[in-house]
Amino acid sequence: MTITFEKPVQRVSEGAVDAVIAELHKSFGNRCVTSQAVRDQHAHTLTWTAPQPPDAVVYPQNADEVASIVKLCAAHKVPMIPFGVGTSLEGHVNAPQGGISIDTSMMKRVIAVHESDLDVVIEPGITRKELNEHLRSYGLFFPIDPGADATLGGMVATRASGTNAVRYGTMRDNVIALEVVLPNGDLVKTASRARKTSAGYDLTRLFIGSEGTLGVITKITLKLYGLPEAVSAATCTFPSIRAACDATIMTIQTGLPVARIELLDALMVKAINIHSKLSLPEAPMLLLEFHGTEAGVAEQATRFGEIAAEFGGGDFRWATRPEERSKLWQARHDSYWASVALRPGTKGVSTDVCVPISRLADCVEETQADLASTGFIGTIVGHVGDGNFHMLILIDPAKPEEYLGSFKIKKAS
Amino acid sequence: MTITFEKPVQRVSEGAVDAVIAELHKSFGNRCVTSQAVRDQHAHTLTWTAPQPPDAVVYPQNADEVASIVKLCAAHKVPMIPFGVGTSLEGHVNAPQGGISIDTSMMKRVIAVHESDLDVVIEPGITRKELNEHLRSYGLFFPIDPGADATLGGMVATRASGTNAVRYGTMRDNVIALEVVLPNGDLVKTASRARKTSAGYDLTRLFIGSEGTLGVITKITLKLYGLPEAVSAATCTFPSIRAACDATIMTIQTGLPVARIELLDALMVKAINIHSKLSLPEAPMLLLEFHGTEAGVAEQATRFGEIAAEFGGGDFRWATRPEERSKLWQARHDSYWASVALRPGTKGVSTDVCVPISRLADCVEETQADLASTGFIGTIVGHVGDGNFHMLILIDPAKPEEYLGSFKIKKAS
Repeated sequence: MTITFEKPVQRVSEGAVDAVIAELHKSFGNRCVTSQAVRDQHAHTLTWTAPQPPDAVVYPQNADEVASIVKLCAAHKVPMIPFGVGTSLEGHVNAPQGGISIDTSMMKRVIAVHESDLDVVIEPGITRKELNEHLRSYGLFFPIDPGADATLGGMVATRASGTNAVRYGTMRDNVIALEVVLPNGDLVKTASRARKTSAGYDLTRLFIGSEGTLGVITKITLKLYGLPEAVSAATCTFPSIRAACDATIMTIQTGLPVARIELLDALMVKAINIHSKLSLPEAPMLLLEFHGTEAGVAEQATRFGEIAAEFGGGDFRWATRPEERSKLWQARHDSYWASVALRPGTKGVSTDVCVPISRLADCVEETQADLASTGFIGTIVGHVGDGNFHMLILIDPAKPEEYLGSFKIKKAS
Repeated sequence: MTITFEKPVQRVSEGAVDAVIAELHKSFGNRCVTSQAVRDQHAHTLTWTAPQPPDAVVYPQNADEVASIVKLCAAHKVPMIPFGVGTSLEGHVNAPQGGISIDTSMMKRVIAVHESDLDVVIEPGITRKELNEHLRSYGLFFPIDPGADATLGGMVATRASGTNAVRYGTMRDNVIALEVVLPNGDLVKTASRARKTSAGYDLTRLFIGSEGTLGVITKITLKLYGLPEAVSAATCTFPSIRAACDATIMTIQTGLPVARIELLDALMVKAINIHSKLSLPEAPMLLLEFHGTEAGVAEQATRFGEIAAEFGGGDFRWATRPEERSKLWQARHDSYWASVALRPGTKGVSTDVCVPISRLADCVEETQADLASTGFIGTIVGHVGDGNFHMLILIDPAKPEEYLGSFKIKKAS
């Protein structure tokens, strides 16, 4: 069950859709699918957004096939929705007017690893975990990690960021070049493999975050990084969420090159303890990771320890073995599922806020007060090194009174 | 004297220009200047590009005045050329069709330093040295350094990079938000001060590098960095330019976070020895700078020393005192003047090449062979950590046989 706020939009003409699907059946055979189950799967979103399935799903195997689909849909004015694996939390893959879902799951090739240039050329349908699996034997990795095992095509299209952005930047900073099918079916390359250019408009950046509105991404050249010599992760609790934020602010202001610094409120810690069978202290917490040389990581950890102590932080728990770290980060990544399990039957409505870091503590505190005034429960996780946090508000779709007209914050006067 | 390759283009209609200038005189009084000397100064370019002066120069003091100029020029279809301080080496500020130069030198305010958010809001006419002078008392700096003391407006418009890009990125990576006057006179803000956003098209990046073709930049929000706790610079000579390139490639591949790694060929070193009264060993050379904690800088220096040794590098000369470092970098920044002094009366034609780093040594060697085949002399400097280098070819404008039709490379068969 899901929640629908929006009025239905005008659907595309049935004749046009039928004509496109007939053509697609001819060219793609059983790679054009109209079964209800597959269509529903391509409208599935993880949150409260109501599913709006496409009329058909087509599975191209290369850029030329994508171009042929785009030309066909354009000729008939039928909407097209590029699809990765559907991990979006915000309904990106829905087809409100109907149309064709272009599923990139048959375009997963790693075309070239340029080890000595620290870049990789891939197709859009590969997921970040699959890519990093492939890269491991080279001693390289791609750091951007939005939590879900999203496809790189989806991550480019949505300008994904996540837990590592504080050190490595977002997708904006880590894409070198793209190949894109434009709305008229032309195939364009936005840049070469060179690391810098001052020639022409930054078309690469224009496509990053364009959410499928400017074209379909068919090839991606990404920056890679050497696996850090040393990695260390830790949890550290604080007497209040403000103290945890203040420690984060000082960490960033002093230029400590922390790789990850994630905030969890006490309820979120409780939720992941239950969901992931951990026994973390149920208090406001920072979850940290340091990357560097052995000496560098040790120095960073010491410095962070000094900062944390200033704000009453303590009870450090270190995870230096890879499997301990994986367990900790998996628990963090499962925070959506852990949260909704706090109130079974609910869906999570996720907010996504980014403020200049000096206002982070204020913003998190005010958001908690706002939530309290509504009577809902919700959890907080945040990529706080960037001033970015999410509140996941748990709402029961079976109780319209929880959302219809009631989604107003009672502001303190 | 300068060299003209291009055929003259059609000038804008005189009536239109006269109408615009008459209006500008009314609104801007003596801030609209038509004297030949000022016009020439606004067409002055440092290289062989022939000057093409505008018809008038106007000095706005704020964004509203810029908008009024843009509206006026647009209404009369008169070209407008935003102007910083004219340090471009490639003729950007020329007015081939005539028109109005919009000089931003009266828009130099630092509007706000957000110390705790590590950002600054400025007007476009401030230069990078003026900005860093202003920031010093905060313990902060803006790292992008294209060599010349360019304005930040010009650096945004041309997507400048330079010596620090290997560590801090280019202008692309360090602009948070812009305020821009669009061609129709509308004033737009491209983003907020938040560090990340996944909302909407990346208009900030679209304007960075657009070279005045999409609008006039009137306000800039930049990322800042804490002044590093420790800085150390060094020169290191190599038996060949290939060896210097190979050491650079390995430095980058091992992820050593060097702040600057600049290549100079032997002739370039000789030129700066003469020009800047230094006594550097006249051999292929890397000029390096390390930023970090005391321990971090020491560790980086040790690691770089090991890499250099593998490629026959040595004769390290360290500059740890700020005044020694300034002298060294000033000499590097004066490389244009040092080069042209090698052959008095010449102008430098600068190339700007960026290749994937694994091909750097090949590309530099082939370029040297190309130059040798022409009989010209030229110097090489390079931001080699990014795979980027310049060759400055010295040409005598008084000898047309040096450039007319002769600018062909005799390729080795």
